[in-house]
Amino acid sequence: MTTMQIQFCDDPKKIKIAELQTLFNLCAFWAQGRTQEGLEIAIANSNPVISVWESDRLIGFSRATTDCVYRATIWDVVVHPDFQGRGLGKELMRQLIKKLRSEDISNVTLFADPQVVEFYKGLGFMPDPEGIKGMFWYPD
Amino acid sequence: MTTMQIQFCDDPKKIKIAELQTLFNLCAFWAQGRTQEGLEIAIANSNPVISVWESDRLIGFSRATTDCVYRATIWDVVVHPDFQGRGLGKELMRQLIKKLRSEDISNVTLFADPQVVEFYKGLGFMPDPEGIKGMFWYPD
Repeated sequence: MTTMQIQFCDDPKKIKIAELQTLFNLCAFWAQGRTQEGLEIAIANSNPVISVWESDRLIGFSRATTDCVYRATIWDVVVHPDFQGRGLGKELMRQLIKKLRSEDISNVTLFADPQVVEFYKGLGFMPDPEGIKGMFWYPD
Repeated sequence: MTTMQIQFCDDPKKIKIAELQTLFNLCAFWAQGRTQEGLEIAIANSNPVISVWESDRLIGFSRATTDCVYRATIWDVVVHPDFQGRGLGKELMRQLIKKLRSEDISNVTLFADPQVVEFYKGLGFMPDPEGIKGMFWYPD
């Protein structure tokens, strides 16, 4: 029998950007090719930033942007494929929401790809509540 | 013939919170009863914050939360009812997007109530692109 020691950390300083890039390139199709500099800026302007560790190995990540009082949007939720199916994604989301709730933010939002809508429903997220539509603008 | 002088401002320091509360209470059903302290925190943690003025009167407002590099979410888009139907909402959105694009943010998002989905479509926003769902979590 092997025991796995998994830790959740809310201190972004622990994260080595090169390791995060590797994790994104492996399992986050929307975050391919992000630069060291870009990720540093993104993390500096995110709150909270939660990372998941198996000993010294980065195996999960998520972050939110927020006004620190009314609204938050969660981005970049990833769990390394070798560690999926063990509830780590759920626990990661719980930690993130707990942290946002400690600032009393009542409206937590995210944009879910079709294949993870059910996952987020299971955590209490509602798609299009009262007909509210998530909308995206991209440059030409 | 009367000429109307309308100005757009990206300096949040110009905004008196009491005036913003009045504007929200008049025409933003989702932002009723927000406190002075809460709005100060929200504005301090928003970027950009664009306000619309007819001389010294606050008649429009919008803000975004962003990681300053990859992602932004627009919140609290309002135009005083007396000044609606003149393209001010469109210009407000253009100013906001221009500011976000000056930081090279390529993914601008928002959550639109059903009655304003068409308005945002007209500005190039797409609902549920590639099946991506906007989702909300509220505390019990």
